[in-house]
Amino acid sequence: MKIAIADMMDLARGATFLGTGGGGDPYSGRLFAEQMIHRHGAPEMVSVADVPDDAACYIIAMMGAPTVIVEKLMNGKDAELAISKLESITGRNADYIIPAEIGGVNSTLPIAFAAQRGLPVIDADGMGRAFPEVQMTTFNVYGVPICPIVIANDHMESTVIETPVAKSAEDIGRAVAMRMGLAVMFTGYPMTGADVKRASVPGTISLAIGIGRAIAMGRHEGDPVEALLSYLKSTDYFKHCGVLFDGKVVDLLRETTRGFSIGRCIMEALDGSSRRMEVIFQNEHLVARDDKGVRAIVPDLIAMVDRETAEPITTEALRYGQRLKVVGVSAAPQMRTPQALACFGPQAFGLKEKFTPIEKLL
Amino acid sequence: MKIAIADMMDLARGATFLGTGGGGDPYSGRLFAEQMIHRHGAPEMVSVADVPDDAACYIIAMMGAPTVIVEKLMNGKDAELAISKLESITGRNADYIIPAEIGGVNSTLPIAFAAQRGLPVIDADGMGRAFPEVQMTTFNVYGVPICPIVIANDHMESTVIETPVAKSAEDIGRAVAMRMGLAVMFTGYPMTGADVKRASVPGTISLAIGIGRAIAMGRHEGDPVEALLSYLKSTDYFKHCGVLFDGKVVDLLRETTRGFSIGRCIMEALDGSSRRMEVIFQNEHLVARDDKGVRAIVPDLIAMVDRETAEPITTEALRYGQRLKVVGVSAAPQMRTPQALACFGPQAFGLKEKFTPIEKLL
Repeated sequence: MKIAIADMMDLARGATFLGTGGGGDPYSGRLFAEQMIHRHGAPEMVSVADVPDDAACYIIAMMGAPTVIVEKLMNGKDAELAISKLESITGRNADYIIPAEIGGVNSTLPIAFAAQRGLPVIDADGMGRAFPEVQMTTFNVYGVPICPIVIANDHMESTVIETPVAKSAEDIGRAVAMRMGLAVMFTGYPMTGADVKRASVPGTISLAIGIGRAIAMGRHEGDPVEALLSYLKSTDYFKHCGVLFDGKVVDLLRETTRGFSIGRCIMEALDGSSRRMEVIFQNEHLVARDDKGVRAIVPDLIAMVDRETAEPITTEALRYGQRLKVVGVSAAPQMRTPQALACFGPQAFGLKEKFTPIEKLL
Repeated sequence: MKIAIADMMDLARGATFLGTGGGGDPYSGRLFAEQMIHRHGAPEMVSVADVPDDAACYIIAMMGAPTVIVEKLMNGKDAELAISKLESITGRNADYIIPAEIGGVNSTLPIAFAAQRGLPVIDADGMGRAFPEVQMTTFNVYGVPICPIVIANDHMESTVIETPVAKSAEDIGRAVAMRMGLAVMFTGYPMTGADVKRASVPGTISLAIGIGRAIAMGRHEGDPVEALLSYLKSTDYFKHCGVLFDGKVVDLLRETTRGFSIGRCIMEALDGSSRRMEVIFQNEHLVARDDKGVRAIVPDLIAMVDRETAEPITTEALRYGQRLKVVGVSAAPQMRTPQALACFGPQAFGLKEKFTPIEKLL
């Protein structure tokens, strides 16, 4: 199947939802992908099962703070610089492009780059959502070394980092990204097809398109939030889901610091009760709590959507008085194993609460 | 001529003087060089004129804050990692090692590495002193590109940075160095012999040894500060020099911040007058002022020495109540051209005062 311009709006909307507040609004990324498809033709999307075991599969992603990424226009030169550096180090040119994360702008960027390079894109990613740090992937959890990583920007600057410790790659890379503009191109995790089969979350580009389509169709049918939940329940990964809260924003704290967008959003119920929900985020939403305690927690997905249109809202688009529904969604099973939770469970973000699957909290 | 273990004490003391407060006390660096010479033999020191034009000449230096560098023991593995990365990028193995700066620990480290690798070391450097930032070299001023630069540490982590802008290399490299321990191995400025002839400050290892020897001999003859000045006056670069102040430390501010040691030292005259001198530093001393105004300013050298023994004192060794003489020394002529002053003159450090040669201030 080819990814057509007509798919991009649904994909971008679905990816914003899966971005769980972060990942950067893919608005400009979608425009860029549409332009690249228009110019170079639609890239082929292939299933994980169809990738040869010895194929060279490279990621391309933006690293930085969503607050900065949304202000950045793309031209493809920095992505080309990053990938070609990686190719010269590994000695193998890319056969396939695979998204590192399906949430936010990093869903559309690999498609734009695949179109630009004339390469197929793999229907999979390393999160089934978005995460703020580069070591927080199933690639890392299931044994793909993160290095060498390459960071590049559109001043044609590049940095190559090699370290045996994945968290060091994040720490050094973050310091570099902050100096290089906080909206930089990132590649790393050079993989074979066999690695992709073992260590990715398959089918997630299709799922993002499906989510976007469900919301769009729901708007015609009258209840887009219900249509969204109904679609999620039909999937393998996201079938445990529900509306955690229906309210308006009464308190909002956001800071761009340490290379991230960090903060919290407090909402008040619209039903006249004094019930409140607090959502904490580091680029992405990490935990949702109400008077009774935790209602959803990473790696399960916490998304905010407009209560009327189900339009997913990123943290940088949150506004005082906004009326939202908070939706909790189960993460893919490979995101919930003990080794996965050690990498991107609550404790990896400094939270005290243990992971409890959303199906036990709903 | 070979650099023997017997030369190392004089070299280290002379390099501490030329470090003008910074560069890191070469105590541990001297011990390491002595050990490497003991183990691998004394490296040959060659004059700039004897280096073939097409030879591959590489620097090796420590980057970080002197306050951290003095606490760091060396083992040579990180230097080898940095140089071998650079060699694999340029495709040429090192024929010669050349110091980037003759001040402080970066004078002894290239000798240790040259011994370890069995390579000759070039009697020259890129400053004729020490400076805090990696773009502040005559190599940069006279047209040698700084990139690729390689930063490595003894956790066997490495970072390769490529940018067309020398100051960007410093900014990104500093952020990396802070994350990688603030006492990291640095190489870059890959040069040919022809580059070295055009863009280095020749003869500076010999000069450092000469300075150390003059101080040592002065102690036998009774007035080491006088012996030091007398030697400096006999040289080509440092012939304009004098004691700017004779006093004791009454006020000291030091901070390790933004990847540097930054601060000021205020001294009070020992002659009973109320005369004071203030010296400002960013790793190295930048400007010395008294009641009448500027007495010496970068790139001219401002050194603090013990008033009895002429032992050079680095900023991290400054103590309240210490009795010091402040010595001002002319920089090498190639350090004072308009293009050199643009790179490491007063304005490059945010100072308001214009550069005035010390011979006009003495």
